[in-house]
Amino acid sequence: MMQPTTFEIASYAQYPSHHQAQSLSLAQQSLQLAWSDGHQSEFHYLWLRDNCPCSECVSTLTREQLFEICDVPLDLQPQQAQLQDGYLTILWEDGHRSRYHPGWLRAHCYAEAMRATRQWQAQSWDRDSIREALPEFDYAEVMEDDRALLDWLRLLRDWGISLLRQVDTTPGTLLKVANRISFIRETNFGTVFDVQAKPDANTAAYTNLRLPLHTDLPTRELQPGLQFLHCLANDAEGGESILVDGFRIAEHMREHYPDEFAALSSLPMEFHNKDRHSDYRFSAPALQLNRAGQVVEVRLANFLRGPLDLPADQVLRHYRAYRTFIALTREPVFQFFYRLSPGDLLVFDNRRVLHARRAFDLRQGRRHLQGCYVDRDELLSRIRVLERQG
Amino acid sequence: MMQPTTFEIASYAQYPSHHQAQSLSLAQQSLQLAWSDGHQSEFHYLWLRDNCPCSECVSTLTREQLFEICDVPLDLQPQQAQLQDGYLTILWEDGHRSRYHPGWLRAHCYAEAMRATRQWQAQSWDRDSIREALPEFDYAEVMEDDRALLDWLRLLRDWGISLLRQVDTTPGTLLKVANRISFIRETNFGTVFDVQAKPDANTAAYTNLRLPLHTDLPTRELQPGLQFLHCLANDAEGGESILVDGFRIAEHMREHYPDEFAALSSLPMEFHNKDRHSDYRFSAPALQLNRAGQVVEVRLANFLRGPLDLPADQVLRHYRAYRTFIALTREPVFQFFYRLSPGDLLVFDNRRVLHARRAFDLRQGRRHLQGCYVDRDELLSRIRVLERQG
Repeated sequence: MMQPTTFEIASYAQYPSHHQAQSLSLAQQSLQLAWSDGHQSEFHYLWLRDNCPCSECVSTLTREQLFEICDVPLDLQPQQAQLQDGYLTILWEDGHRSRYHPGWLRAHCYAEAMRATRQWQAQSWDRDSIREALPEFDYAEVMEDDRALLDWLRLLRDWGISLLRQVDTTPGTLLKVANRISFIRETNFGTVFDVQAKPDANTAAYTNLRLPLHTDLPTRELQPGLQFLHCLANDAEGGESILVDGFRIAEHMREHYPDEFAALSSLPMEFHNKDRHSDYRFSAPALQLNRAGQVVEVRLANFLRGPLDLPADQVLRHYRAYRTFIALTREPVFQFFYRLSPGDLLVFDNRRVLHARRAFDLRQGRRHLQGCYVDRDELLSRIRVLERQG
Repeated sequence: MMQPTTFEIASYAQYPSHHQAQSLSLAQQSLQLAWSDGHQSEFHYLWLRDNCPCSECVSTLTREQLFEICDVPLDLQPQQAQLQDGYLTILWEDGHRSRYHPGWLRAHCYAEAMRATRQWQAQSWDRDSIREALPEFDYAEVMEDDRALLDWLRLLRDWGISLLRQVDTTPGTLLKVANRISFIRETNFGTVFDVQAKPDANTAAYTNLRLPLHTDLPTRELQPGLQFLHCLANDAEGGESILVDGFRIAEHMREHYPDEFAALSSLPMEFHNKDRHSDYRFSAPALQLNRAGQVVEVRLANFLRGPLDLPADQVLRHYRAYRTFIALTREPVFQFFYRLSPGDLLVFDNRRVLHARRAFDLRQGRRHLQGCYVDRDELLSRIRVLERQG
């Protein structure tokens, strides 16, 4: 007899069965499933045993695994495996029974072709393409409608930039928007930060000076993910925002300056941020690649660099590469200019999009932005939960 | 004339001059400094220009760099360079003048021998060594005395574990201790979490079940750094804490199971943590190495794993490696057992030390811990600031 199975699937997501599992063949360490569309999946016995969703293996309270894969033999074999009503069922040699949902199985197939379809692709941009494609949303809609929220978050994930309009200019409103995603990432600059010229500025953002293109807090191991910049007032002269897609510039470098690209993605730079009460330092390459070689993070702020600490024969190589990147960020073809108006809320991926500001002159008026951060983990979790609703 | 130099050194740290710069020779791209102890330093002109601490190059308000290294030629040359009163002074070909403090120069010399002395080394441990060497501190001392605080934090950084005794058992007291370092790392489990058996548990920690050895929140891109566990009550039967040094086990694997070590440090695992309101996932190898090949992070929780997503020919290799690691965590020689008493505050590096708890039985009494996290960035920043005081 089957033990009582509370869940067909241990997760909360849904896995519609677009394809039927049609036949089964067993080999020494794995079985092969043939699907109605001709696709073939190989599943190793150990992998299958590890993913048994029954209530003995997975807690019905927390949906976390109770079973430990250590506790069965490495060469565990099925005594019997069959397709029943489209489900794969296995009786293991130790008497345990498992039953697998076909939609779940297909979604987790690790054949190369299926793995490739699960790869995320960024949508990169330059001045001309973002002018046409900038994702813009209405504040009220995003606050009230989960469908609009999901649309916004997906575009933000893929383009790395977005603009909300007609946002209430009451201070603190950006938190309400950020909380539509999740909690705020606190940093050494607090939770909400006021971007205003301050007499006791401990960082360049809090002066009226020009800020060159940079990511925020490259001095922290995990740079903040999404940056929110909410404009409350802006009638000072100057202070225009400039944004560039760091991924696009990195790809341009990879193509046209391959050694400079290799240097920036392998040689660590030093990032320092010190004031009277803190002394943050982190060492990492400016460009971080994933295992597939895609650029997944840019880390850069000229004014937060510490003394380079590389083997002597790499020092000039680094400077050549760094200067090439900075020179590219200054190319107008990459630069999206935007003058924030009160009620605008710019949200962008701080680990990808570099931002800058021109100097401003307070004799003509006020300039007050509020900012906060939400991490990538929260963005992606929120998207997944919203997608559960179908 | 020298322009007004506000700082000799752009940072707040002090760099005592233990050695004198004695002579100077200029080459095409760099200069060579000979020190009184015989050490030779090579400094590239571009590196020197980049590190000019004068008030034109570094803001006297924020101590951040205003100068951009992009704005001078790649082959910038000194017109004149000399040693004056122990300082290196340079007149650049564009008329800019720079002056470098000898202690600062020596501390930032990037000769291989000097770079090696700056490498941090973990102090790894097993059951026997930690029984003798467990860093223990008195709560009141750490709260009042900055010297005791610095001693505690350095040992915590190096050993990855420590115990504070006689901590006030008023709920929330752990925040006061954590705030001696800095702010709390908020996660999807909040800022302070209560480790108690709860009827609506969304994770295994909040049940009375046995928890196998794990790190907390491997499902987040940045696992929380320091974990604080403050015991308020513990008279339930069972519930002993077990801790192992993940670095020690990884080193054991590297020596005795080289392919398993290679697999765990290169093949990504999937970590999932889902409940009704969130759906966190992160993919990373269980062991993270730095550029020098040292293990700098362990990421592991049996009960927070998602379905493995590897090329088919790596699946069994992964399971072999994973099972080897887990089997080693179960070896008594690595396990430090400790039964928390009210007033104990265990603080450990969650990215290194795996912790477990035995099942407990609430019929005999209560068990209530409070926990919170503080990240490595905060720990290291605090140590640096305390070290500034000499």
